[in-house]
Amino acid sequence: MRNEKYQRKKRKSKAHEGLASSILGGDDLALSKAITLVESKKEVDNSMADEILNSCLSATGQSLRIGITGVPGVGKSTFIEQFGLYLIKEHQKKVAVLAIDPSSKRSKGSILGDKTRMEALSKHPKAFIRPSPSSGTLGGVASATRESMLLCEAAGYEVILVETVGVGQSETEVKEMTDFFLLLMLAGAGDELQGIKRGIMEMADGIMINKAEGNKLPLAKKAKRAYQNALHLFPPNENAWTTQVELCSALKGENLDLVWKMMHHYVQLTKENGFFEKQRKSQLLSWFEQDLTKKMNQKLYQNKTAKEKIIAIKEQISRQSLSPKEGAKMVFDVFLKNN
Amino acid sequence: MRNEKYQRKKRKSKAHEGLASSILGGDDLALSKAITLVESKKEVDNSMADEILNSCLSATGQSLRIGITGVPGVGKSTFIEQFGLYLIKEHQKKVAVLAIDPSSKRSKGSILGDKTRMEALSKHPKAFIRPSPSSGTLGGVASATRESMLLCEAAGYEVILVETVGVGQSETEVKEMTDFFLLLMLAGAGDELQGIKRGIMEMADGIMINKAEGNKLPLAKKAKRAYQNALHLFPPNENAWTTQVELCSALKGENLDLVWKMMHHYVQLTKENGFFEKQRKSQLLSWFEQDLTKKMNQKLYQNKTAKEKIIAIKEQISRQSLSPKEGAKMVFDVFLKNN
Repeated sequence: MRNEKYQRKKRKSKAHEGLASSILGGDDLALSKAITLVESKKEVDNSMADEILNSCLSATGQSLRIGITGVPGVGKSTFIEQFGLYLIKEHQKKVAVLAIDPSSKRSKGSILGDKTRMEALSKHPKAFIRPSPSSGTLGGVASATRESMLLCEAAGYEVILVETVGVGQSETEVKEMTDFFLLLMLAGAGDELQGIKRGIMEMADGIMINKAEGNKLPLAKKAKRAYQNALHLFPPNENAWTTQVELCSALKGENLDLVWKMMHHYVQLTKENGFFEKQRKSQLLSWFEQDLTKKMNQKLYQNKTAKEKIIAIKEQISRQSLSPKEGAKMVFDVFLKNN
Repeated sequence: MRNEKYQRKKRKSKAHEGLASSILGGDDLALSKAITLVESKKEVDNSMADEILNSCLSATGQSLRIGITGVPGVGKSTFIEQFGLYLIKEHQKKVAVLAIDPSSKRSKGSILGDKTRMEALSKHPKAFIRPSPSSGTLGGVASATRESMLLCEAAGYEVILVETVGVGQSETEVKEMTDFFLLLMLAGAGDELQGIKRGIMEMADGIMINKAEGNKLPLAKKAKRAYQNALHLFPPNENAWTTQVELCSALKGENLDLVWKMMHHYVQLTKENGFFEKQRKSQLLSWFEQDLTKKMNQKLYQNKTAKEKIIAIKEQISRQSLSPKEGAKMVFDVFLKNN
């Protein structure tokens, strides 16, 4: 019996080592399999994913991580496909596309689920596209995307584009896992920001006004000036970078070099002044803290007694018949007793 | 021996009941004492504070909680003093002033530490001014301020002004404990927002341009238009409220009624559409979650073995030789073993 267990453990350990070395060798199929383990609802899969990740860890961190957001209709898919192809063709980069969509119950997948939307890019051997994880992911959607990103880096992808659909906290989550945050906008009638959530504009390192083409060009130029003026009112960034605004047409493949130049300048500046590394480091530590809190919450909610207690206590707090602090103390006591 | 312990416990319990009923009776001295217990570095004091708070809980929640921020030099102290006196004299309100200053090592107190700055207000029987807690507070500066706020409410204060000095996360913390967030600004030369941190403007429910007096009036009017234009670019608030911009002169006591009107309209609107209650409720639940996390962290750092482990693990994570998730798992295991 003991021997059997040992054998099984050994097989598993071999399987994860095999996957890890295939990923490090640039095998996309192995990468896909590992991401499936990351996104799984089963604890055993997640543990295996953790082991793979640990084996790959030293090969991570070498890519440029770019977050991309914008309202529906702004042309995100077209932009990502064209920009990805541009990076592959003009700069010989390997490009991975991930998405974060906490609400993916909606479409049983995501905007990226339909790969046909990025047909040319998805077929390219130097590109890797992965639809966003479903909300059933055990460790949470954000951490699944974050871990998938690390796996892509281990597989040799040099630019990771992380798309957000702008639901819930997703922009903040993407901002917290990327180096550069790009906001796609449309030239409209002065109400361009309608629909974009508060605070998003101040989170952006760069703004691209898309669909700046044909008779929309004058409006786009006007919008650019309006944004530049608005940005001027904002206080300077901690990283000494001034948010840039440019025009492009993803559909026509125009001005995509301006996006890349913008990012290049950003990286140059922030690597020089130390902000790039500082941000990476603080992201790692904040992931650690989030994971620690999550770990505790998982443990808490796995316990039926504790779970029922929490629901009851939240109810009392809402009715103001119990202080939040006292409630926390009570839940914590239940937690300690039940572990 | 056992009897002695019992007697001591009984005395303590009597002491807290005495303080609680004095606070509910509007005794400022009792209020001060209770806040000192809240801010103490000793666990025994904190527990007593918790008991007092629990006894007062049903008398909390009745005030209007106003967060106030602005760069140094904007005239925050003068504004708070004049606005406080206005509320007392014109609206017969009882006004409490608290401050949050996570960095108060700096001045061994805070901008409010020097009560002479608000001499007239601090002497008024219907006002209560409390300097910000020192950073040595056991439960954290934000939660000390939050609990002091509840105690002030129990003592019958009807408007609580919570000042932030804008260091670290203090604005977000104040925003998360108040109903209305006021940003004080100066009319300058178009660079008004220099010095204000990113995101603050989008957090504000109201903007007052202070020192709008004499030959600065035309500039102030121009600034008002500029802010209104910038705010127009922002997306609408969840609460259907449009951030208002007004001019005032705290020094001359001019237009303070506009501030109050602004707040009054805000409360009216958000009570009608349910946002006011919704925000209060979600604040309570987020305090609970923060307290729960804090509780765990306290327990963790109280344990020497765990503490050393955490420092070592953070170091490894920073060097990218350990994944954040794996690190969290290791710390959590240490935590469970040591409790």
